Amino acid sequence: MSQMIALMTDYGYLDTYVAQLKAVLMNMAPQATLFDITHGVHARNIYSGAYLLSTVVPYLPEGTVIVAVVDPGVGSKRRAVAVRGTRHYYVAPDNGLLSLALRADLPRQAVVLDNPRYFLPHVSHTFHGRDIFAPVAAHLVNGVPLEQLGSPIAPRTLQVLEDIDHEIREGCLVTHLLHIDRFGNLIFDLHEDGFRRWLPPNRKVRVEFGRRVIPLKRTFSDVAEGKPVAYFGSSGYLEIAVNGGSAMDFFGFYILLEEEEELVAKVRLQ
Amino acid sequence: MSQMIALMTDYGYLDTYVAQLKAVLMNMAPQATLFDITHGVHARNIYSGAYLLSTVVPYLPEGTVIVAVVDPGVGSKRRAVAVRGTRHYYVAPDNGLLSLALRADLPRQAVVLDNPRYFLPHVSHTFHGRDIFAPVAAHLVNGVPLEQLGSPIAPRTLQVLEDIDHEIREGCLVTHLLHIDRFGNLIFDLHEDGFRRWLPPNRKVRVEFGRRVIPLKRTFSDVAEGKPVAYFGSSGYLEIAVNGGSAMDFFGFYILLEEEEELVAKVRLQ
Amino acid sequence: MSQMIALMTDYGYLDTYVAQLKAVLMNMAPQATLFDITHGVHARNIYSGAYLLSTVVPYLPEGTVIVAVVDPGVGSKRRAVAVRGTRHYYVAPDNGLLSLALRADLPRQAVVLDNPRYFLPHVSHTFHGRDIFAPVAAHLVNGVPLEQLGSPIAPRTLQVLEDIDHEIREGCLVTHLLHIDRFGNLIFDLHEDGFRRWLPPNRKVRVEFGRRVIPLKRTFSDVAEGKPVAYFGSSGYLEIAVNGGSAMDFFGFYILLEEEEELVAKVRLQ
Repeated sequence: MSQMIALMTDYGYLDTYVAQLKAVLMNMAPQATLFDITHGVHARNIYSGAYLLSTVVPYLPEGTVIVAVVDPGVGSKRRAVAVRGTRHYYVAPDNGLLSLALRADLPRQAVVLDNPRYFLPHVSHTFHGRDIFAPVAAHLVNGVPLEQLGSPIAPRTLQVLEDIDHEIREGCLVTHLLHIDRFGNLIFDLHEDGFRRWLPPNRKVRVEFGRRVIPLKRTFSDVAEGKPVAYFGSSGYLEIAVNGGSAMDFFGFYILLEEEEELVAKVRLQ
Repeated sequence: MSQMIALMTDYGYLDTYVAQLKAVLMNMAPQATLFDITHGVHARNIYSGAYLLSTVVPYLPEGTVIVAVVDPGVGSKRRAVAVRGTRHYYVAPDNGLLSLALRADLPRQAVVLDNPRYFLPHVSHTFHGRDIFAPVAAHLVNGVPLEQLGSPIAPRTLQVLEDIDHEIREGCLVTHLLHIDRFGNLIFDLHEDGFRRWLPPNRKVRVEFGRRVIPLKRTFSDVAEGKPVAYFGSSGYLEIAVNGGSAMDFFGFYILLEEEEELVAKVRLQ
Repeated sequence: MSQMIALMTDYGYLDTYVAQLKAVLMNMAPQATLFDITHGVHARNIYSGAYLLSTVVPYLPEGTVIVAVVDPGVGSKRRAVAVRGTRHYYVAPDNGLLSLALRADLPRQAVVLDNPRYFLPHVSHTFHGRDIFAPVAAHLVNGVPLEQLGSPIAPRTLQVLEDIDHEIREGCLVTHLLHIDRFGNLIFDLHEDGFRRWLPPNRKVRVEFGRRVIPLKRTFSDVAEGKPVAYFGSSGYLEIAVNGGSAMDFFGFYILLEEEEELVAKVRLQ
């Protein structure tokens, strides 16, 4: 195991939640190196968090302990878990947040965090990042074996997110919005690998979003400034962007990723 | 004294004010470890800053030098101070920003920063974080004794914030808004300890905010999704939240913490 | 060369672009120290980025390798470059982003990054920060000489920004908006040094912005609360602020720095 602890949360940058969590880690594992994945996951949005985590995991040094907290169910009965993947360790609520990362880093072993001996002495109802996940991660890098941290569970019982994959419907690839980035790019759950497997030889496609038809190109600068464009982004997922602008503004909606409404794009053969 | 310098400012993340301050520290005290408390304090809001600082101080390693800058009076006649508390050191403008932290970490010694020998050679009118507070903190971790940094003042003359405590009025606890966090939770100056001391045995209470009556529960997931709820948060202060949503949006106001208007909640016996 | 790598981007804090870039650096140059200049440059705004970079460069330790990425032309034909200045090294797109920093840190040697041997094996079309700039910076701190990283170019061919300087027009200094900071202060391309050289002896000036005349003072607290004021800020550039408030709000415009419209202030002799 490395001595690197990587952190991803939706705690944002306006508060001290991140600092409290890190201070606990520094006190309990002063030798560890802390690495920020991001703390800007859209508030309470597990889809955005699952996507973002999956984009960084391939670049982290082997054996990194990842603390991932997007936890709208904190204080309710959702499980807290620690997972040993093929390359990394994960400490997180069991709500699907890990599901995209664990596709590429297959889980080998998992426990439910039910041993308060590895928590802070007082556990609040709203801040398990500080009181449970951070101390458990500290114990992990300090050499406590995963199996001591809680009761074993089968990795296949870990929550997965619904609708995290594109579907094939009426000859289209239907893909769901996962995340909107700071540039206003819309990122969907269609990976280039899946697209290539689906695409019949010598066929071209168009992307439909709302009432618009959007060309699929290599990158945003392949269209004129101010025009929408679709391409596979730097982590391999389908993106809709506007060259020199914001697709979010262009399509006239604000970051409402918490809404129930399903936002989909369709990839159709021409 | 530890070699840890912890930083809290309202400089935000859009600019290089934080980087300039840190670069000065790195140049003058390259051996020190820098720790970010937060730089997202609401702009110029000393109440928000005082609250945020108090939530982290209990978790910092003993002997940390804390540089705290929320400084709407920079360039005017407000004092700049260095304070030795029971556990930590503080370098800050004397405007009440330290008042909540110093309740838990009683001040033992204080000086007013009036010795330009410990400042940068050129002091700007608007950026004392870089030009005064950072170099003074560097001298502190480099071993300059507090008493050399300026003229002694009595710790009891340090500014305290008005209205930073709940009051008892007409049989209610009246508590003032201190901070709104990134989840839209409203955080008030009523600490659970004070509440418990006030609460008569076997009595229940309700919380009033504006025209609404809000149940006091253990945590937000104790009410249905979309419903408002009050509880004592992870640092012990009264919070009003909405399960799965934002109390700020629910109550229809934006972050206007700079407004003069006093925002209060009332805790009333049932 | 120092082992410090300083990073400035417009990647923001909502995503993992910064973390991916840093993870590449950690893997390739684990001995290096990473320093964040800021990742909050206004999206795609090279003027804002050039200004921000110039405010930090004087405070960085000599020999720092600076990775600066504000790159609206990524994937198009803009050049990518590495530059040796008098004090620091720079790795960046050649779009003018370095132009203000290189005024104070004169460029001695430059190469265009055309040797894929120093890139990641797979280069995406949209994320050269991770795939080109980060690995090149890692090779630099690992001791690869600048001239090996690409083909030599004359430093005088490096892009400069248009309109990055005030002009003298009809007896006025006309100065362009470069940046709006988190406090809502408006920052212009007039440096105090240029102003002093222009100002005739014993003359006073006023600042005009839109239809308003704004007094030029020492600092914002020299006017009453709520009043607009101009002064030379902590990095020497002309700023328009409002004491205790936000000039951006006061003048009723939002951060629209991407707009083509030129925003100017005029400094006129009284």
